[in-house]
Amino acid sequence: MTTSSKPLRWQLRRRPTGAIAHDDLELVEYASGALAPEHVRVRNIYLSLDPTQRIWMSEREQYLPPIAIGQAMRGTTLGEVVESRSERFKAGDLVLVGLAGWETVSDVPAQAVARVRRQPGVPLTAAMSVLGNTGLTAWAGMVKVGQVKAGDTVVVSAAAGAVGSVAGQIAKLRGARVVGIAGGEAKCRWLTGELGFDASIDYRNEDVGAALDRHCPNGIDLDFENVGGDIMNAVFERMNTFGRMVLCGLISGYQSEGPVAGPANFERILMQRLRIEGFIVIDHLPHAKEAFGELGAWVQQGRLHWRDHVVPGLENAVDAMQLLFSGRNEGKLLVGVSPEPA
Amino acid sequence: MTTSSKPLRWQLRRRPTGAIAHDDLELVEYASGALAPEHVRVRNIYLSLDPTQRIWMSEREQYLPPIAIGQAMRGTTLGEVVESRSERFKAGDLVLVGLAGWETVSDVPAQAVARVRRQPGVPLTAAMSVLGNTGLTAWAGMVKVGQVKAGDTVVVSAAAGAVGSVAGQIAKLRGARVVGIAGGEAKCRWLTGELGFDASIDYRNEDVGAALDRHCPNGIDLDFENVGGDIMNAVFERMNTFGRMVLCGLISGYQSEGPVAGPANFERILMQRLRIEGFIVIDHLPHAKEAFGELGAWVQQGRLHWRDHVVPGLENAVDAMQLLFSGRNEGKLLVGVSPEPA
Repeated sequence: MTTSSKPLRWQLRRRPTGAIAHDDLELVEYASGALAPEHVRVRNIYLSLDPTQRIWMSEREQYLPPIAIGQAMRGTTLGEVVESRSERFKAGDLVLVGLAGWETVSDVPAQAVARVRRQPGVPLTAAMSVLGNTGLTAWAGMVKVGQVKAGDTVVVSAAAGAVGSVAGQIAKLRGARVVGIAGGEAKCRWLTGELGFDASIDYRNEDVGAALDRHCPNGIDLDFENVGGDIMNAVFERMNTFGRMVLCGLISGYQSEGPVAGPANFERILMQRLRIEGFIVIDHLPHAKEAFGELGAWVQQGRLHWRDHVVPGLENAVDAMQLLFSGRNEGKLLVGVSPEPA
Repeated sequence: MTTSSKPLRWQLRRRPTGAIAHDDLELVEYASGALAPEHVRVRNIYLSLDPTQRIWMSEREQYLPPIAIGQAMRGTTLGEVVESRSERFKAGDLVLVGLAGWETVSDVPAQAVARVRRQPGVPLTAAMSVLGNTGLTAWAGMVKVGQVKAGDTVVVSAAAGAVGSVAGQIAKLRGARVVGIAGGEAKCRWLTGELGFDASIDYRNEDVGAALDRHCPNGIDLDFENVGGDIMNAVFERMNTFGRMVLCGLISGYQSEGPVAGPANFERILMQRLRIEGFIVIDHLPHAKEAFGELGAWVQQGRLHWRDHVVPGLENAVDAMQLLFSGRNEGKLLVGVSPEPA
């Protein structure tokens, strides 16, 4: 855990080229002034690391403004209110800060903060993963955008990732047949074992196309796409008539500079009447109640599984971020910024 | 008009490479045998020529089986029943044959035939265009797939074509702002004149991207895509967040052999949460009643305009087909196979 007594935060020093270099960001002390009215001061406990943050570091076209050079890295945190100038919060409250920074302490408007409701028997980290934005992303993409239904053959790429693993289970729990694509034998075993996927494909050791032919002999109805590139194309080529391709992420392109290529044979969208649709979780916040109702019940019933991967110490955030792009994280990647309350 | 006394039909002799060559097809006499029970014999009056028929001539992946070498060319016709072995039809009835051939006489199951209901004051050809599959295609794509709404900025490519011209007017009649892309000054004048489009872009004489910037300063909400390639890409690059790209056709690729490329920067679908969806009119036959209710009323009110371009003589069908790919047809392209009933 970070031990500095002054607040610390990561700022963007320059835009990364390719993989994030350690000195593309710098960890700096900063002085927090007096807390403004209707604001709260939050001691951050966990920081969420997400592939999309690599996009924010770049100047490519994106859905939020790029982070400016010299600005604090943006990120979602879970923390404890240590000072409040809002009637809605008091010291000791646990809160989620949607657009905080990679920082030990965040001063934020009270209206930009949501109370964390802990579920009995569920670790606090779940509020950053299966019962947080990760779970909402998986649910919105699979249910609202993908409109998964019983009997569908569903493929999920990056299926052992934080979103993919939950997305695949949602499809299973709603009656679909689910094939997950992941990197490495251990991840694939986790998918077909604990998570109950019908099949898995290890893209590091298998020909993805041939494996899809084997595991999806009747084609693919729904693709929950996290990766893009060749893996996406192999799935696309096997989409059934009226198939749906939900774009949740295209991580294979986030560290490259040029435009991200689409499927090779675009005409299939017309011939097979496919639907390709991108989504971002922030568009689906109005569905949070419905999503967390369903996800929370499954968690309580022990039917929905997840992993949180906590890397302790804010100073390790940049190194931890690289785990996402090499596929070495195991489940939802968090930085442990400070201890949970006793 | 065709004058041979024996039935004639066009058969596929070999698959075209690039543009259709005259001898890729051959016009042959054939003997029709005795009419089978529950069948009708139809003297074809009009044959519909459609870009999609070029796809049927090829072996590329498609939504119906390719036409086999030596088989009659497939096409929709409007004709008069001359013999009936079905209680539902009698000689003299005017009918549409959805999957007939490029032929003077069609023997078809009665259940594959639909009665033509003429509208007062509307030419018979309209049943092959604005009040036929062309109109249904435009309506289904714009209303059901594209979900056009008042205030949308809509772009239609091949906007002076049979489908595009109706699609754009539907968008206008439902309160959208409509920009049409077409080839040549005369077509562009027709769009902004008689059809009431808000603006037109002559892709032969204008930089499409610059013209889109000028005519769609607030971006594009809905693209009704008939063309593909560079024109589609110019529209795609300007799609607004939550924009919809409806793929009705990709004619720019129909005469090439390789795969049809999609938009260059596929990642925009994710970042701007776009939806790209292909459709084929046959999937929307259940919407015919709703569509023709709306289209028929607009026609009666004089608010919906269209052009039928009749090339007389079945023997001219192959040459006529080439008009579609050079953009020289003016409105819905039909072959006049035999005279209308008096």
